[in-house]
Amino acid sequence: MILTFNDNASEVEIYKIKEKIRSLGLETYELIGLNYHILGIKGNIDLLDLKDLEENKSIDKVIPNEVSQMKASRLYKSEDTIIDVKNQKIGGKKLTIIAGPCSVENKDQILSIAKSVKQSGANFLRGGAFKPRTSPYTFQGLGDEGIELLKYASEQTGLPIVTEIMSINHIDQFVENVDVIQVGARNMQNYELLRELGKIKKPILLKRGISATIEEFLLSAEYIMAGGNENVILCERGIRTFEKFTRNTLDLSAIPALKKLSHLPVIVDPSHSTGLWWMVEPLSKAAISVGADGLMIEVHNDPEKALSDGNQSLKLDKFANLMEKLKPLAQLEGREI
Amino acid sequence: MILTFNDNASEVEIYKIKEKIRSLGLETYELIGLNYHILGIKGNIDLLDLKDLEENKSIDKVIPNEVSQMKASRLYKSEDTIIDVKNQKIGGKKLTIIAGPCSVENKDQILSIAKSVKQSGANFLRGGAFKPRTSPYTFQGLGDEGIELLKYASEQTGLPIVTEIMSINHIDQFVENVDVIQVGARNMQNYELLRELGKIKKPILLKRGISATIEEFLLSAEYIMAGGNENVILCERGIRTFEKFTRNTLDLSAIPALKKLSHLPVIVDPSHSTGLWWMVEPLSKAAISVGADGLMIEVHNDPEKALSDGNQSLKLDKFANLMEKLKPLAQLEGREI
Amino acid sequence: MILTFNDNASEVEIYKIKEKIRSLGLETYELIGLNYHILGIKGNIDLLDLKDLEENKSIDKVIPNEVSQMKASRLYKSEDTIIDVKNQKIGGKKLTIIAGPCSVENKDQILSIAKSVKQSGANFLRGGAFKPRTSPYTFQGLGDEGIELLKYASEQTGLPIVTEIMSINHIDQFVENVDVIQVGARNMQNYELLRELGKIKKPILLKRGISATIEEFLLSAEYIMAGGNENVILCERGIRTFEKFTRNTLDLSAIPALKKLSHLPVIVDPSHSTGLWWMVEPLSKAAISVGADGLMIEVHNDPEKALSDGNQSLKLDKFANLMEKLKPLAQLEGREI
Amino acid sequence: MILTFNDNASEVEIYKIKEKIRSLGLETYELIGLNYHILGIKGNIDLLDLKDLEENKSIDKVIPNEVSQMKASRLYKSEDTIIDVKNQKIGGKKLTIIAGPCSVENKDQILSIAKSVKQSGANFLRGGAFKPRTSPYTFQGLGDEGIELLKYASEQTGLPIVTEIMSINHIDQFVENVDVIQVGARNMQNYELLRELGKIKKPILLKRGISATIEEFLLSAEYIMAGGNENVILCERGIRTFEKFTRNTLDLSAIPALKKLSHLPVIVDPSHSTGLWWMVEPLSKAAISVGADGLMIEVHNDPEKALSDGNQSLKLDKFANLMEKLKPLAQLEGREI
Repeated sequence: MILTFNDNASEVEIYKIKEKIRSLGLETYELIGLNYHILGIKGNIDLLDLKDLEENKSIDKVIPNEVSQMKASRLYKSEDTIIDVKNQKIGGKKLTIIAGPCSVENKDQILSIAKSVKQSGANFLRGGAFKPRTSPYTFQGLGDEGIELLKYASEQTGLPIVTEIMSINHIDQFVENVDVIQVGARNMQNYELLRELGKIKKPILLKRGISATIEEFLLSAEYIMAGGNENVILCERGIRTFEKFTRNTLDLSAIPALKKLSHLPVIVDPSHSTGLWWMVEPLSKAAISVGADGLMIEVHNDPEKALSDGNQSLKLDKFANLMEKLKPLAQLEGREI
Repeated sequence: MILTFNDNASEVEIYKIKEKIRSLGLETYELIGLNYHILGIKGNIDLLDLKDLEENKSIDKVIPNEVSQMKASRLYKSEDTIIDVKNQKIGGKKLTIIAGPCSVENKDQILSIAKSVKQSGANFLRGGAFKPRTSPYTFQGLGDEGIELLKYASEQTGLPIVTEIMSINHIDQFVENVDVIQVGARNMQNYELLRELGKIKKPILLKRGISATIEEFLLSAEYIMAGGNENVILCERGIRTFEKFTRNTLDLSAIPALKKLSHLPVIVDPSHSTGLWWMVEPLSKAAISVGADGLMIEVHNDPEKALSDGNQSLKLDKFANLMEKLKPLAQLEGREI
Repeated sequence: MILTFNDNASEVEIYKIKEKIRSLGLETYELIGLNYHILGIKGNIDLLDLKDLEENKSIDKVIPNEVSQMKASRLYKSEDTIIDVKNQKIGGKKLTIIAGPCSVENKDQILSIAKSVKQSGANFLRGGAFKPRTSPYTFQGLGDEGIELLKYASEQTGLPIVTEIMSINHIDQFVENVDVIQVGARNMQNYELLRELGKIKKPILLKRGISATIEEFLLSAEYIMAGGNENVILCERGIRTFEKFTRNTLDLSAIPALKKLSHLPVIVDPSHSTGLWWMVEPLSKAAISVGADGLMIEVHNDPEKALSDGNQSLKLDKFANLMEKLKPLAQLEGREI
Repeated sequence: MILTFNDNASEVEIYKIKEKIRSLGLETYELIGLNYHILGIKGNIDLLDLKDLEENKSIDKVIPNEVSQMKASRLYKSEDTIIDVKNQKIGGKKLTIIAGPCSVENKDQILSIAKSVKQSGANFLRGGAFKPRTSPYTFQGLGDEGIELLKYASEQTGLPIVTEIMSINHIDQFVENVDVIQVGARNMQNYELLRELGKIKKPILLKRGISATIEEFLLSAEYIMAGGNENVILCERGIRTFEKFTRNTLDLSAIPALKKLSHLPVIVDPSHSTGLWWMVEPLSKAAISVGADGLMIEVHNDPEKALSDGNQSLKLDKFANLMEKLKPLAQLEGREI
């Protein structure tokens, strides 16, 4: 069960409510933000006087749903969530390595990259078909054709595919053709999209917004989970700060925080966060050491001619080399690649 | 005409291209960002050798459209844009004062607020029907019923209405019932929504994302304008910084910047940016002094019982009082309320 | 009297302590930050049991000084502080206009600027003699010679001078020759310097650090005041954010916040915050409208040849013009120039 | 040799100057910031016409010193700097592990911690004697007595000591008693202190300011090195961002950036950056994986009773345990503990 408090509920009132609940032998947990204060209650909630709670002026809402609330929280589910995608497990002992180009460009490109990254040890293929670009006048992706090419590459290699959705109108198409649906940083608080994705069962890879707090990030995951889709993968990809040496600032502290607060798998994208290919290796290592469940890495067969973000892409041989270096590190952490 | 450059185009190459264009007597202007470099060209573009440009390796794209590009730019249109909404003009001498509650709650509430703010001098009524909330478990707005109530209040008072859209599925409904369609900060880079709003003619009030740069803000306006809808109103509503005394940090420097770079009307929302009702008066004054074309202010008949954001809402009499104080200030700036 | 709490004091414990104090008819007020929790107590503190407080495990320190603590707070002193400098009053009805070049360069420069800004309505002359520069290899100011030149210009024009101190070794020199001693943003938390400046009586103009919260800013003022020098002037000069269109982001919301929390005069520096001369006029107006007690503006007779920060300096005639525009605005706010 | 450019030097002018220099067979390298543009020149600078450069209007300063400039840069010195402190090497194969309490509190505390961390594998003892505290009313450290206690613990254990300096008046005392002098984040741009520390030979551990860019950080190191003290150790300790889950945001991307730009040793402080003891382990691992030369970790024998920052301190056994976990990781990176 969950209680939400009114904005003007005093600390003392909230304290009294919590004490009363705990005195019945129930456990409580809280999420507190600038605009909300949510109290979760675990245990035999039949002991509570619902009417009494509903009439309490400090309480905004009583959500007496035994199982469906705060689904992202570790308090809701203590063991790690493991998501199965075509026999690849995300969140378990094996690290999830998602590799591929920023944009799908043509059949040769995507197939050669897919084959190469598979051989190097990647277990998912990424590639943008619908691209969210800051300017309306830059390359916006191949669209439907890009999805077809990804599917073809997937059939040829067996790698499940991860690609970004930008429109609720594409959900059917993605459910049919895509293995993991990515929600980009710009859409992390596009609640309409999140709600619709909550109605399907496909795994959702949710990227952290560039200025989203850890709590806002989890609450966006909650939008999807509240609808019934608990297959959410969190992805840290850098936050916007004053520092401009790197495109964004990769917030690796967020990984232990997210793993503590939530049971969901957490992966790291060192390519977009830094925008610099030569930072991918050290930050990939750091991500594994800090406890991430996987990596999302941009790889291109010819970065200098890439239609987007070439500067942050690894060449195929560099990616192969990186995988070799990550293996003993993963092992040391009790993981495998 | 517009040129976009490849990411790897050198400064020298770009300089050479600009010099060549200018040597033909054409004017150039630029927008430079982390991921793009756009060159606008004004004048007799028939003098240019298109094929030569298209073959230039430094140039990504040649967009030889004489009139339809970079529509948000002052260089595209030097005089201020004035948008007419039911005889209220946004962007002209008269300041645009949009007032109303955070959320539409019921008929009495919205009607009494509408009547009161009209009498105090507001020329638009605002009110949220579909609310983007950080948590899926907090009040999400009255939805369709909220739109009906706003329409009713508009009919009774003659005030045109401004309310936020969250879904492309609502566009028809909004076109029929709403006078100015608001895009919230969280959706500023929801490009699907922007593109669809580019296909209609209704004025769009676009709020700056909490971590959007001025350039990204203008490029989001460009997504709407590129589609053919040039009726865009920009709204500064605070950016996310380390300072937490105010909810966000109102960036008033952005007003002269936006007015210089763009011909679009720019308004300021002092309520959401600070989250504190007692800051609304001084920041409203500052907004007018710095050159804003209007204000968007939260007003509630009973802030302490408001279903959302009561803490930042002015009471009706305080709003009336504020309007009185703003009148001489507006006059001093050559504006009127 | 002031109490500081231990980091591990629970909210409930603190609440109990406050309730006990209030039950004796005393008033309490608080400053809460990430690393501190300070409780101020007003009224007849003889009613309190000091020993009891000192033995309380939640309380870190009992500072039983009736008059000397939290001197920056409005709760300590409710009326505005007005500082008298050679018959110029800072903090009263008359606005404080501090104008002059970024760096003192030579006698002609400083004298001609001083004469001109005085005629335009400035009541203080600014100019850097010791310059804090990011790189050790750029112009570091004229040093002692700069102080002499400022003094000369002051004698010729009657304008009191404001200039920045960088070393505790210069305090005697500054006390003798300078009218208002400026502490720059980089030194806002140079506690050694603040403590030494607390031992003198000269007014201190304290600039907000580029990443200082409002509370940290006030606590730095407190370092000076705690030592006995209550002549502190606060200066907002922009904070560091992700936005790079302006050098920093001028936080005008800080003005009403500081005026509410503190009785100290607050001025605004629109030149350094934006780094753009053409933004000085609109932001100066906004600063006055938002309630600032004055402005600090960079003016140069030949900005293009300035040894530092020419891009943000107004020419002499532009400054004169700005003063004319500010007069009616000041009047509207019940102030004068 | 180094050139600095005027603020108003055009890109084209700068380009021409660089081309001319390169055409003589000399190498150039650049540091470009908001307020400076520095060009370094390597090679036979006798080929250059000094007078010609000095008279060039785009050039601010010609610094014709063959060996002493931009000392922090990798271009100045390509091999890693290794600093020897009582036979402990900082910057070499062996990781530098600096451990100890936030504040020195008493003889028993510091001695028992020193013995314990030494046994666990630390090679330096840290402890604050002079503490920079945000509020003037919180514990400011034991001062001189703290230095004496550190020295005693050092004599008993053989561990060299690292402690923070806050005043130029303490330099002699620190030179005599302290092994590595720390400059805290708040004083990173206290140029007076940096200059004075440039005149001595003791190693300086320079902490990054909470809002300092990587370039500003290196330029602060340059202030020390320009004076002749090249024994500088850089310490990343978190930057200030909007995220408040952790006290600051540890910027691990800065490590590969600093190691690429500079030859100086770089260490990481996971305790202060997060403010959370349970994050120290994962972030220590990440720091080593990303290439740091060492760690600075807060350890306390009784964190709950610590006079400052107890919440971020590891207990002695947790520290011992951490060291055991770091050993195989260090080995994997070709380092040792």
